Amino acid sequence: MDPLSKLEEIFRHFPGIGPRQAKRFAYFLLTKSDADLAEFSKSILELKKSVSMCSLCQRFFPIGNKVVNVAAPICSICSDPNRDTDTLMIVGRDIDLQAVERSRAYNGLYFVLGGSVPIFDEAPDQKIRQKELMARLEQMTSQEEGHRLKEVILATSVNPEGEHTASYIAGLLKPLVSTHGFRVSTLGRGLSTGTELEYSDSETLKSALQNRR
Amino acid sequence: MDPLSKLEEIFRHFPGIGPRQAKRFAYFLLTKSDADLAEFSKSILELKKSVSMCSLCQRFFPIGNKVVNVAAPICSICSDPNRDTDTLMIVGRDIDLQAVERSRAYNGLYFVLGGSVPIFDEAPDQKIRQKELMARLEQMTSQEEGHRLKEVILATSVNPEGEHTASYIAGLLKPLVSTHGFRVSTLGRGLSTGTELEYSDSETLKSALQNRR
Amino acid sequence: MDPLSKLEEIFRHFPGIGPRQAKRFAYFLLTKSDADLAEFSKSILELKKSVSMCSLCQRFFPIGNKVVNVAAPICSICSDPNRDTDTLMIVGRDIDLQAVERSRAYNGLYFVLGGSVPIFDEAPDQKIRQKELMARLEQMTSQEEGHRLKEVILATSVNPEGEHTASYIAGLLKPLVSTHGFRVSTLGRGLSTGTELEYSDSETLKSALQNRR
Amino acid sequence: MDPLSKLEEIFRHFPGIGPRQAKRFAYFLLTKSDADLAEFSKSILELKKSVSMCSLCQRFFPIGNKVVNVAAPICSICSDPNRDTDTLMIVGRDIDLQAVERSRAYNGLYFVLGGSVPIFDEAPDQKIRQKELMARLEQMTSQEEGHRLKEVILATSVNPEGEHTASYIAGLLKPLVSTHGFRVSTLGRGLSTGTELEYSDSETLKSALQNRR
Repeated sequence: MDPLSKLEEIFRHFPGIGPRQAKRFAYFLLTKSDADLAEFSKSILELKKSVSMCSLCQRFFPIGNKVVNVAAPICSICSDPNRDTDTLMIVGRDIDLQAVERSRAYNGLYFVLGGSVPIFDEAPDQKIRQKELMARLEQMTSQEEGHRLKEVILATSVNPEGEHTASYIAGLLKPLVSTHGFRVSTLGRGLSTGTELEYSDSETLKSALQNRR
Repeated sequence: MDPLSKLEEIFRHFPGIGPRQAKRFAYFLLTKSDADLAEFSKSILELKKSVSMCSLCQRFFPIGNKVVNVAAPICSICSDPNRDTDTLMIVGRDIDLQAVERSRAYNGLYFVLGGSVPIFDEAPDQKIRQKELMARLEQMTSQEEGHRLKEVILATSVNPEGEHTASYIAGLLKPLVSTHGFRVSTLGRGLSTGTELEYSDSETLKSALQNRR
Repeated sequence: MDPLSKLEEIFRHFPGIGPRQAKRFAYFLLTKSDADLAEFSKSILELKKSVSMCSLCQRFFPIGNKVVNVAAPICSICSDPNRDTDTLMIVGRDIDLQAVERSRAYNGLYFVLGGSVPIFDEAPDQKIRQKELMARLEQMTSQEEGHRLKEVILATSVNPEGEHTASYIAGLLKPLVSTHGFRVSTLGRGLSTGTELEYSDSETLKSALQNRR
Repeated sequence: MDPLSKLEEIFRHFPGIGPRQAKRFAYFLLTKSDADLAEFSKSILELKKSVSMCSLCQRFFPIGNKVVNVAAPICSICSDPNRDTDTLMIVGRDIDLQAVERSRAYNGLYFVLGGSVPIFDEAPDQKIRQKELMARLEQMTSQEEGHRLKEVILATSVNPEGEHTASYIAGLLKPLVSTHGFRVSTLGRGLSTGTELEYSDSETLKSALQNRR
C-alpha cells in the first residue's frame, strides 16, 4: 500500500476518527514541509524510548535525561518524597490522573488501571491491570516497607461502566481490607460545574445536600 | 390575525421554540379532534384559577378542591406540619424545587426566587422576588413565630449566573445572619451522574476529593 | 387531572417535545397574563372554525371573512384563475407546500398527501390521502372540465421514505398516464445550498453535473 | 520538548482537533506496538516521496512504481488518453476531486485550486493557485496543442466562500472566454440526498423545479 493510503488507514483507527477525517489528515500532511514531516516521524519513532511505564503506578511518564532503572522504572510522582504514601487513588487512564494532578487537590499516590470493566464482562482481569494492582497493594501494605496504607480512593467515572469497575475492585480489595484495615472511599458526588438543578438526578441532589457547606 | 397565524406567533414565544417548530405546532393542532382542542383550550383558561402562588414560598401549586385563603394562600409544603421549619432552601424556579422534591432528600421549606440575577445587572431586585424573600426571612426569624431559622441553603445552579445570584443573596442575608445567627450554606460540589474524570474541572475534583466517602 | 398536569400531558404529545420541555411550557404559561391566556385559549377554540381543508388540494387554509362552500371548500390557490391548471405538484404536508410557495418558482396546482408511505408498510392507502388523490386526478383529466393535465410533479423529500412514497404514487398513476398521456416528473437533484462537494454522494454529483449551467 | 508533548502539539494542529483529542491521540500511540509505530513513522517520512503534485491539474497523486518526469510530473487522470480534453472542472481541494471521481459521472480533466477565496480577501491570488490555473488555461486554449477547450465547470462548494471563489474565477476567465469562446458553467443546484422540502431555501427549490425530470 502506498504511504498516503497507509496513513489514511492508520488515522482511521485513531480514537473518534472516521474515514473522512482520516483522509483529511493524510492530505493535511501533504501540505506540510519536509522538515515538519521529519519531526513528526521522528517523534513517533522516539515516543516509546522517551516514555516509560512506571512499575508502581503503571502510568506513562517521559524519561527525559534522567537515569531510569530499566527493569523497574519509577515515575516522578511515585518517587516524590513529599507525596503521601498512605493514600492510593485508583484511576482508569493516564488522562484521568492528569486531570486530578491539574486540580492540585490530591497529594497521595496513584494506580492507573489502563481501562475499565464492562458490565457482564466475563474476563474482567483481562480488561484492567489487576495483577499489577494486587502486587502494588501487597507492597503498600507489607510491614517491611515501613509505611502503612490508610486509604484507597476508587476514582472511576460516574457512569455504569465506571461504577461497575469500582465495585469490581472493591470486591478485590475486601480480603486486604479485613487484614490491613485501610479505608476504601469513592469520590464525592454533588453538583459539578455547569450543573442546573432542574436537570439533576435524585442521587446527585441527595449527595449535594449531604455535602453542603 | 387569523387563529392559525396567531397560534404560530404564540408558540414562537414558548421557551426554546423557533419559527419552524412554532409552525409545526400550529399545524399539529389542526390534526387534533374538536374534543381535544376544546380540552386544551379549557385547560389554558382554567390554569390560573386552578393554581395559586403560595404566599410563603412563592411557588405555584394546584388548588384542587381545597379551600384556599385567597388573600394569603399557603401550599401543601409550607403548611405540612412534618417539614422542618428551621431550614429554608432558596431555589431559582418551580422546576428546581420539583427536582429537589423528587430526590426525597430534603425535608425543610423552600423559597422560589422566580429567576436569577445576571452578572452586571443594575436592578437585581427586579429580577428576583427580593422583597418577598426578605419578608419571609423576617417572619422565619421573628420570635413570635415560635420557631427559629437555623439554616438557609442557597441552591442555585452551578454556572456564572447561578453563582452570582447566590452571592447576591448571601450579601442580602448578612445583616440577618449577624442578628439571628443562622447558617448560610450552598449545595455540595462533586462528581455528578455521568461525569468523566478526564473532563472534570479542578474545582469539581477538589470538592469530590473533600467529599469522598 | 388539574389543568397544570393536563397541560403538561398535552404538550408532551407535541411533535419533538419531551417531558421536561412539556413541564417548562406549562410553567411558562403560569407566568403569562390572564389576557394572554384568554387569547391563547380562544385561538385554539377557534382554530378549526377559522380553517378549512380544501376539497381539491386537501391543504388547510384560513377562511377569513370569505364565504366558503361548506360542503366543498376551495382554497385561494385552487380557485386562483391565474394558476396553471395543467400542472399538479404532489407534496407530503402543508409545510412543504408553503416552502414551495415561498420560493415563488411554481405557478401550478397542488395536492397534499397528508403523510408519507413507510417502506414495507402494509396499508399504504391508509397513510396518505390516496382516495382523494385519485378523485382529484380523475377530475383533472376528465374532458368535461375543459382543461387537460399535462404534468404531475412528485415533490416528496429526498430520503428513503420520501422516495418510496414517490414510487408508490408513480405506480398508482401508471394507468392514468397510459390513458391520458400526462408527464410524471420529480424535482431535480443537485447541490443544495450549503452543500460541500467533499461530502456529496455520487447521485447528487451526477445530477449536479447533468444539470450544470 | 519530549516526543509525547511534541506529538500532542503536532496533533493539536490537525484539522478539527482540539487539545483534549490531541492528548488522546498521543496516549493512544503509546498503546501501539513498536512495529506499528515504526510503520506509522516510515509512512510519514516516505509520504512526500511517494506522492507527486501533477504539473497540470495540481493534484497530489501516488507515484507508485511508475517513472515520473520529475520536472513536470503528470498524474494518471491528466495523462489518460480516454478523458475528454475539452472540459476542465475547477475544484477547491483534492478531496473534492475524489468525490467527483467516485461518482463516475465526469470524464473530463480537472484543476485543483488548493483553497478558496474568502469574501473581502485582499490578495485572492495568494489563496488559490491562480498563476498555475492561468498557465493551464493558456495551454488548453493554444492552437498548437491541437485540442480546443469547450467548457470550464466551476465546481466550488455551495456556500458564500465557495460562490465567491467561483465568481472571482469567472472574472479571471472573462478575457479568455471572449477570445476562445468556451463555455463557463457551474454545477446544477437542486435537492441533494437527504433534503426535506420543508427546510429547503427558495433558490434550491427554484433550481429543483427547473431541473425536474
